[in-house]
Amino acid sequence: MAKDPVEGRFAYEGLDRVLHEKARLGILTSLSTRPEGLLFGDLRRLCALTDGNLNRHLEVLQGAGLVEIWKRFEGRRPQTLVRLSVEGRRRFLDYLGELEKVLHDARKARALEREEGTPPALKPGWNPA
Amino acid sequence: MAKDPVEGRFAYEGLDRVLHEKARLGILTSLSTRPEGLLFGDLRRLCALTDGNLNRHLEVLQGAGLVEIWKRFEGRRPQTLVRLSVEGRRRFLDYLGELEKVLHDARKARALEREEGTPPALKPGWNPA
Repeated sequence: MAKDPVEGRFAYEGLDRVLHEKARLGILTSLSTRPEGLLFGDLRRLCALTDGNLNRHLEVLQGAGLVEIWKRFEGRRPQTLVRLSVEGRRRFLDYLGELEKVLHDARKARALEREEGTPPALKPGWNPA
Repeated sequence: MAKDPVEGRFAYEGLDRVLHEKARLGILTSLSTRPEGLLFGDLRRLCALTDGNLNRHLEVLQGAGLVEIWKRFEGRRPQTLVRLSVEGRRRFLDYLGELEKVLHDARKARALEREEGTPPALKPGWNPA
């Protein structure tokens, strides 16, 4: 492979940064368990985020059309419901497919299989950078 | 779950941002297939990165102790070899374990199972935000 590396073999273009960001990945996975949606406060706790951080990430996800945000009053208390949109479900499934590829590639990896964990000795002539 | 959401159930603390970043994940997976290391140019092509981008990400990975960088002259031509360090191999395995958790959670998700893809109707009273 080193002599003929396949261009972009490990580029993983499908790891869309909107979905791949750690907190947003947690939000989407959380929402994927609840087709009917989650209240803001529950989502915040499940993802261990602050109000501000959750709001910021929801703006990104709503802007990309991945989640729907709904409001209502429960008596005088405002409530916010978040749920995966049809487009969000589709794109999350695509993203998960790419994640499977990463895990598939890594599972085959020889450097991870080696029990002793030490890399093989280098040929003479190499100096640490 | 909405009535008693488990704090941080979907926080995925193990998705270390140093490893989770899309390009670096590609670099690490690429290196994991080659215990003996990869030449800079081959790594660049495999990950479809520019010289500048690969350099920047390698600095982050080397700074975190995840990769080793070696130099030598092949005749008058300088060569750079990159390989996974012992620590990098260990942390990459931990990271992959957390990624498996995300996929496990998502595979069980009801919102993704629904063939029709449309979310259930909302109760009256909710307004789009």
